[in-house]
Amino acid sequence: MASEASKETKLWGGRFTGATDPIMEKFNASIGYDQRMAQADIEGSKAYVKAIQRAGLVTAEERDAIVAGLTAVAAEWEAGSFLLKPGDEDIHTANERRLKELIGAPAGKLHTGRSRNDQAATDTRIWLRGGVRTLRGHLYDLIKVLVLRAEQEIDILMPGYTHMQRAQPIRWSHWLLSYAWALSRDMQRLDELAPRVNVCPLGSGALAGNPFNVDREMLAADLGFATISGNSLDATGGRDFVAEFLFWATMTATHLSKLAEDLILYCTKEFSYVTLSDAYSTGSSLMPQKKNADSLELIRGKAGRVFGTCAGFMMVLKGLPSTYNKDLQEDKEAMFDVYDTMTGVLQVATGTLSTLTVHPEACTAALSSDMLATDLAYYLVRKGIPFREAHGLSGGAVALAEQKGCTIQDLSVQDLKTISTTFE
Amino acid sequence: MASEASKETKLWGGRFTGATDPIMEKFNASIGYDQRMAQADIEGSKAYVKAIQRAGLVTAEERDAIVAGLTAVAAEWEAGSFLLKPGDEDIHTANERRLKELIGAPAGKLHTGRSRNDQAATDTRIWLRGGVRTLRGHLYDLIKVLVLRAEQEIDILMPGYTHMQRAQPIRWSHWLLSYAWALSRDMQRLDELAPRVNVCPLGSGALAGNPFNVDREMLAADLGFATISGNSLDATGGRDFVAEFLFWATMTATHLSKLAEDLILYCTKEFSYVTLSDAYSTGSSLMPQKKNADSLELIRGKAGRVFGTCAGFMMVLKGLPSTYNKDLQEDKEAMFDVYDTMTGVLQVATGTLSTLTVHPEACTAALSSDMLATDLAYYLVRKGIPFREAHGLSGGAVALAEQKGCTIQDLSVQDLKTISTTFE
Amino acid sequence: MASEASKETKLWGGRFTGATDPIMEKFNASIGYDQRMAQADIEGSKAYVKAIQRAGLVTAEERDAIVAGLTAVAAEWEAGSFLLKPGDEDIHTANERRLKELIGAPAGKLHTGRSRNDQAATDTRIWLRGGVRTLRGHLYDLIKVLVLRAEQEIDILMPGYTHMQRAQPIRWSHWLLSYAWALSRDMQRLDELAPRVNVCPLGSGALAGNPFNVDREMLAADLGFATISGNSLDATGGRDFVAEFLFWATMTATHLSKLAEDLILYCTKEFSYVTLSDAYSTGSSLMPQKKNADSLELIRGKAGRVFGTCAGFMMVLKGLPSTYNKDLQEDKEAMFDVYDTMTGVLQVATGTLSTLTVHPEACTAALSSDMLATDLAYYLVRKGIPFREAHGLSGGAVALAEQKGCTIQDLSVQDLKTISTTFE
Amino acid sequence: MASEASKETKLWGGRFTGATDPIMEKFNASIGYDQRMAQADIEGSKAYVKAIQRAGLVTAEERDAIVAGLTAVAAEWEAGSFLLKPGDEDIHTANERRLKELIGAPAGKLHTGRSRNDQAATDTRIWLRGGVRTLRGHLYDLIKVLVLRAEQEIDILMPGYTHMQRAQPIRWSHWLLSYAWALSRDMQRLDELAPRVNVCPLGSGALAGNPFNVDREMLAADLGFATISGNSLDATGGRDFVAEFLFWATMTATHLSKLAEDLILYCTKEFSYVTLSDAYSTGSSLMPQKKNADSLELIRGKAGRVFGTCAGFMMVLKGLPSTYNKDLQEDKEAMFDVYDTMTGVLQVATGTLSTLTVHPEACTAALSSDMLATDLAYYLVRKGIPFREAHGLSGGAVALAEQKGCTIQDLSVQDLKTISTTFE
Repeated sequence: MASEASKETKLWGGRFTGATDPIMEKFNASIGYDQRMAQADIEGSKAYVKAIQRAGLVTAEERDAIVAGLTAVAAEWEAGSFLLKPGDEDIHTANERRLKELIGAPAGKLHTGRSRNDQAATDTRIWLRGGVRTLRGHLYDLIKVLVLRAEQEIDILMPGYTHMQRAQPIRWSHWLLSYAWALSRDMQRLDELAPRVNVCPLGSGALAGNPFNVDREMLAADLGFATISGNSLDATGGRDFVAEFLFWATMTATHLSKLAEDLILYCTKEFSYVTLSDAYSTGSSLMPQKKNADSLELIRGKAGRVFGTCAGFMMVLKGLPSTYNKDLQEDKEAMFDVYDTMTGVLQVATGTLSTLTVHPEACTAALSSDMLATDLAYYLVRKGIPFREAHGLSGGAVALAEQKGCTIQDLSVQDLKTISTTFE
Repeated sequence: MASEASKETKLWGGRFTGATDPIMEKFNASIGYDQRMAQADIEGSKAYVKAIQRAGLVTAEERDAIVAGLTAVAAEWEAGSFLLKPGDEDIHTANERRLKELIGAPAGKLHTGRSRNDQAATDTRIWLRGGVRTLRGHLYDLIKVLVLRAEQEIDILMPGYTHMQRAQPIRWSHWLLSYAWALSRDMQRLDELAPRVNVCPLGSGALAGNPFNVDREMLAADLGFATISGNSLDATGGRDFVAEFLFWATMTATHLSKLAEDLILYCTKEFSYVTLSDAYSTGSSLMPQKKNADSLELIRGKAGRVFGTCAGFMMVLKGLPSTYNKDLQEDKEAMFDVYDTMTGVLQVATGTLSTLTVHPEACTAALSSDMLATDLAYYLVRKGIPFREAHGLSGGAVALAEQKGCTIQDLSVQDLKTISTTFE
Repeated sequence: MASEASKETKLWGGRFTGATDPIMEKFNASIGYDQRMAQADIEGSKAYVKAIQRAGLVTAEERDAIVAGLTAVAAEWEAGSFLLKPGDEDIHTANERRLKELIGAPAGKLHTGRSRNDQAATDTRIWLRGGVRTLRGHLYDLIKVLVLRAEQEIDILMPGYTHMQRAQPIRWSHWLLSYAWALSRDMQRLDELAPRVNVCPLGSGALAGNPFNVDREMLAADLGFATISGNSLDATGGRDFVAEFLFWATMTATHLSKLAEDLILYCTKEFSYVTLSDAYSTGSSLMPQKKNADSLELIRGKAGRVFGTCAGFMMVLKGLPSTYNKDLQEDKEAMFDVYDTMTGVLQVATGTLSTLTVHPEACTAALSSDMLATDLAYYLVRKGIPFREAHGLSGGAVALAEQKGCTIQDLSVQDLKTISTTFE
Repeated sequence: MASEASKETKLWGGRFTGATDPIMEKFNASIGYDQRMAQADIEGSKAYVKAIQRAGLVTAEERDAIVAGLTAVAAEWEAGSFLLKPGDEDIHTANERRLKELIGAPAGKLHTGRSRNDQAATDTRIWLRGGVRTLRGHLYDLIKVLVLRAEQEIDILMPGYTHMQRAQPIRWSHWLLSYAWALSRDMQRLDELAPRVNVCPLGSGALAGNPFNVDREMLAADLGFATISGNSLDATGGRDFVAEFLFWATMTATHLSKLAEDLILYCTKEFSYVTLSDAYSTGSSLMPQKKNADSLELIRGKAGRVFGTCAGFMMVLKGLPSTYNKDLQEDKEAMFDVYDTMTGVLQVATGTLSTLTVHPEACTAALSSDMLATDLAYYLVRKGIPFREAHGLSGGAVALAEQKGCTIQDLSVQDLKTISTTFE
C-alpha cells in the first residue's frame, strides 16, 4: 500500500506541476537580503582559495584565475551591475555562479572542502565585525555630545525627579552625564563582544572540519580574524555571537528609550525645559500650533523593535538541535535590521542632543521650595536630631506651609519653632 | 544665559547645516513600506471626500474632481508609474501631493477635518481586513489537506509518542487531525478578531473628533466597515487590533512549529516514516547524499520571527501615553512582515503536507511490542485487578522480556504466570 | 566496550549515591505550586470514578468509597491539614496517595484508563475557567468606575494630547471613556476565549484515548464543561488555551500601562490635574515632601511582568513535538502568576481610579489659547478657504502671536487681516 | 467645583474605609521576596553606619550599638526567628524596625543621608555578586564533566548531523566538546559582567548623592566592592546589571536547550545512542514500559522560562524615565527566579551528563555508508576532479547504489567506472 504523493496530488494538491513550488523557492531564498554580505563573501573566498592552493588543492594559476574572477565579481557588486539570475538562492551561490561564468572550470574547485555552513558563518562574522566598529563610532559620538554639553552647561540647575515627582535640585549636567555613564557600559559590553565575533570558522566544513590540511591559522590571519574557532560543530551551528549583539543593541536602545522619555517630558508645554531643533521635530497635518518630538518618540519605539528582533531570534535558537539547521537563516535579517535601526537611533540621538536648546530659567523656576524639605531635615540632623525624627519634623514644616498657603522658605523661625525648638 | 543650539553646534555638532538632517528624514519616513497601503489610502480618501461633500464642505464638482484625481493616482500605483518625490514622507502625503499636481486647488480641501491620525488608522484597518481574509483562505486550505489525507490514509498505523518516546499505537490520521483541531481553533480566533479590525476610525480627527457633522455611519458603510469606532482618543491611539493579529499569527506559527518538529523527526533516517517531495527539500553543497527538510525547518524558525515581531510591538505599546505617538509607526512593518511570513508559512506547510510520502511499512514496523504494555495492564484490569497493581505487573512483564532478550509477545503464559496468576 | 555510567561516576560524578538526585527531585516536582489545583483535581477524580463506574470498571460500592475518600481529602485541603509526604511530586500523586491511606485498595482503581496527561489538562482547565470568571468580574468593576466617573464629571474640560503635546480641548470624561472602550474589547476577548478553556479533555488517556467505553459527554457534563475535546493527541498536548489567556492578560495589562502612564503624568507637579488618594500613593524614606504614585507605577511595571510570562511560555511551546512533553509543566506557574498579578492590577486600578481627585481648575487653566489654532483654521474653512491653506494661515497667526508675546485670542482683527483678509 | 473623592466613593467606590487598601498593601509590598536579601541588607547597613561615624554623624558608641543590634537582627534571620510585622513592606523597613526595637533611639540615625533607593541597589548588587559566584561554580562543574567524558570516551564514533539528517561521521567527544566550547563563552560572559555587578552605589542617596562627606571609597572597600558608581542618578535608576545577568542566563539556558534537544533525540528508541540513569528520568502513570527523559525536557523548557523573565524585565525598563520608579521593584523576583532556575538547570545538566550511558555499538551501527559520499567526492578531488564535478559524481554513486538496493561500499569499481573513469 504505497502512499505515493504523485497519486494524491490530484486530490488535494496540484497547485504546481514541476519539481519546484515558486512559493517555496521564495520562502527558501535568502539572496534578497544576504547580498548585503557580497563583499564579505568574496573576501572570504579569496582567502580560501589561497589556503587551498597552499594545501595543494589548486594550482597557483587556478588560484590567480579565481582571485581575479572574484575581484571582477566584487567590482560588479560595487558598480551595481551584478545581475541576479533564477537559481541564485543565496549570495554564496550567486557569487560562485558568476565566477564560473567569468573564468570557467577552475571556479568549480573553489568550494573544495568548504561548505555553505562554514562559508555563511564566516561571511556573517566578517560583516558583523565591521558593523560593530561602525556602531562603536556612533556610540562614541553620542557619549561625546553628552560630555561636552555637560561641561559647557554645568551651571544650569533643574529639578531632579524620582517617580516623576520633583525630588531634589540637581545639575542639568548631572542628568546628561547619567546617560554618558550608562552608555559607557554599553560601549564596554560592545568591546567585550567584539572578540567573540572576530573568530574564524572557515575550515569547519559542513560540521566535521576540513580534511585537506588547510592551514586555518594562516587563513584566519589573511581575513583579519584574531582567532580560529575550536570546534567545528560549534562553529557552524553556534550563533551566540549574533544573539549577544542583538541583546547589546536591545540594552543600548533601552537606555536611549529612557533618555527619550525624559526629554519628551522636558519638551512638554508643562515642563518646557528644552526645545528640540526643527530638524528633529515635526508638525501636525491638522493642528497648526503643534511641534512634536518625533525623533525622540521614534527612538523610544525602536527599543521595542530591536528587543523584538532579539526575542524572536532567541526563540529561533531555543530547542534547536546542534550544528546547522535552516532555522538559523533567520540570523541575517535580524542582524541587518538591528544594525540599521541602531545606526539610525544612535545618529538621530546624537543629532537631537547636539541641537536641542535647554531653557535655564524654566529649569530654575521649577525648583519649588518643597524640594528643600530634605535639606531642612539635614539641617536638623546637623543639630543632632536623629534622621528619622528630623524627617518627620521636616514633613511637618511642609504641611504647615501648605496650610498657610506659603512655601517652606516663607515660614518664619517662629513658625518653625512650633514644630521643633531646634530651629534657630 | 541663553543656551542656543546655534552657538553650540560648532562645539559638538555641525553634522548638517540646513534645517534638515537627512538621517533623521530617513529615520522618520514611512513611505518605504506604507506605500503598500496606497490603494487603501485612496479608497479611504474617496469615501472621505464624498462624506465632506455631503456635509457641505466641498461642492459636488470639487468632489468629482478629487475622486477622478484619486482614481488617476490609483492607476499610477497599479501601473507602477507613481513617482516618489523628496518630501513624500508617507503614503498620505505622497498621494495628496500627487493629487494636487493632477487637479490643483481642490486637492487642498480633501484633508478638511481629517488628520493623518485617523487617516493612517483607517488605511491600516482596510489593509489588514484584506490580509485577514487572505490568510483565512490559506489556513482553510491547510486544514483541508490535513482532513483529506486523514480520510484517505486512515488505515496507516504508527507509534504515538509522548516525551518523544514510543507510547501507544495510533493512526497516522489521528496525528494529522490533531493539527486540524489546533488550526481550527486558530481559525476561530481569526474569525473573532476580524470584526475588531473591521471598525471605521475615520472621523476621529487627530484625537478630538470631526467638527463638521460628517455622517460617520454612512462613511463607514461606504468603506465596507461593519461599525464605527466609539471614542476618538481610543480610535486614533488604539492598536490592539494589530497586536491581536500579531499574536494570532504567533499562536498559529507555534502550532506549525510543532507540526514541523514532528515531521522533521519523521523524516530522519532513524524514523523514516515520511519523505518530503523534492520541491520542499534541498541538498547539501558539500554532502552529495543529503536531503534536508528545509521547508519544515524554515516553518519552525518562522515561529520565532513572528513571535519576535509580536513581542517587539507589545514592548512599543507598553507605557505609551494615550492617543497618537510616533512610536506607533512601528505597527505597519510589524503587520506587513507578519502577513508576508504567514502567507509563506501557511502555503509552504500546505504544499509540504500535500506532497509528502508516508511509508506505512516503516510506521508499522516501529510498533514495538513494549507499546502493548498498557494493553497488557488493561487486560488485567478487565480481569478485576486494580489498575495501579496491573500497571506494576505489566511493568514486570516488560522487565522479564528485557531480561530474556525477547518481546512481551514472545513471553509464554507460563512466563506471565510467574508474574501474576491472573494471566491465562 | 561498555561505557557504563556506574564506572565513570567515580571520575566525574559521585555527587549522589542512591537512585535519586535530590536536586533533580526538586527540579522535577510541581507540588509546590500545583497544589493550588487540589480542589479541581478532586472534582475531576470524583467525576471520573462515576464515569468508570458507569462503564463497569468499578462497583457502585467502590465508587462510593472513592468519592467519600476524596471528599475527606478535599476537607483536609480546605482545613489546611493535608500533609505532604516525600514522593508527592505533584497534586495528582499526592491526592491519590492520601486517598489510598484513607480507603485502601479501591483507590488503586481510580486511575484506570486515565493518565496524568489528561488529568492535569482537566485540572488546569477547571482551575482556569474559575480564574477567568473572577478576572471578568474585576474587569467589569474597573469599566464601571470609568463609566460612572465619566458620567458624573462630564463638565470637566482638559487638554487632549498627541505626542504628549497639547493638541485640542477634550472632556475629562472622553479620556476616561477611551479606556472603557479599550477594556471592553479586552472583556470581549475574554468572553471569546472562555469557551475554549471550558472543554473537557478527560478521557484522552496519555495520548491515545480511553479504551473502556467511558461516556465522555456525561463526564464532561458532570464537570460543568460545555464540550469535550475532539482529538486525544491535541487534548493532552495542546496548551493554546493557556497561551491565549496569557496574551489576553498581556493586552489588558498593556492597556492599563497606558492608563497608568497618563495618570502618572497628570499627577506630576507640572501637570497637577489629579491627586491620588493616600491609600494608593507612598512617601519617600528620604524626602519628606514626596508623594509618589506607586500604585500606577506598579501597574505600569506589571505589564512587563505579564508579557514576560506570556513570552516565556510561547518560547516553551515553540518547536516542541506533539502530545505531552515535560516542558509543558511550565504552564501552571505561568497561569498562576499571571492570574495573581492581574487580580492585583485590576483591583488596584479600580481602587486608584475610584478614589483619585481631579482638579478641574488646573485642567481648565491648561487650555492654552494656541490649542485653538485648529478652530481658527476651521473658521477659515467655513469661510471657503481650502483646509491646507487655512492650516498655513492659522499657523501664521500662531507665529504672529508668539512674535507679539500674546495669545491668539489677543490678536486683533487688524492683526489677523495682515495674515488673511478673510478674517472678520 | 471641587471633585472630591470622598464624596464620590459612595457612588462607585467604598471598597475600603480606612486610609489603606489591603489589596494595595499586598500589591506594593516586596517583603515576601526581598527578605532573601536580609543578610545583604544588614551587611550594607553595618558598613554604612561605620561610614557615617567616620563622617561624624553618629558617635562611636552609637555606631557600636547599631552594629551590635544589626548583628542580633542577622542572627534572628539566620535562626529563622525573625518575626515580620504589619508595616514591614520591604526588607529595609523590616530590619530597621527590628533594630529600633532592639536598641532604641540610635536606630533612627542609621538612615542619615541614605535612601531606600541607594540601599536597595546596594543590597541587590551584594546579593547578585554572590549569586554569580555560585552559578560560575555550577557552570564550571558542567564544563568539566563534558571535558572529562570527552577525554575518556574519545574512541566512540557516531553520526554527525546537520538538519537532523546524518551527515558525516564524528567522534562522540567532538559532540560533547562542542558544548564545552559554547559554555566556555557563557563563562567568559559571566566573568565580564561580574565587575559591572560589583560596583557600590551606596552614597547616592535618593538620586542626588550624599551631602555628609561620607568616604564612599572606604565604604565600598568595606563591602568588598571593586569600584564605586560614578553618577548618582545612574546608580539609583540603572538596572542594566540585572538585565545583563538575565540575558546571560537566557543565552546559557538556550545553549542547554540545544544540548537537551540532542540528547532527547539520542534517547529515543529510534536513535538509542544513550540511556539516561534512572535518577534523571521518570516513568509513566499509564504506560508501564515508558522511560522519559524528564530532566532534559525540563532543561529545554526552562530556557523559555528564563527568557520570559528577561523579556519581561526589558519591557519593564523600556520607556521608563530616569532614576528610581516603582516599576523597578520587578528586578528582584526576576533575579531570584532566574538564579534559582539556573541553579537547578546547571546542576541537573551536570548530573544527567555525568550519569548517562552511551552505547558505542548503536552509534557505530548508525554510520550508514551513504555518509561516505563526501569522502568519495574528496577521493575524486584528490585525483584532480574539481569539487563541484566530484560532488555531482558522488551523488551519482549514491543514486546508483539506491537503484541497486545496495550501499556505496558495495558498488564495484566497474559500477563506479560507469559514473566516472577516474575511479580506480
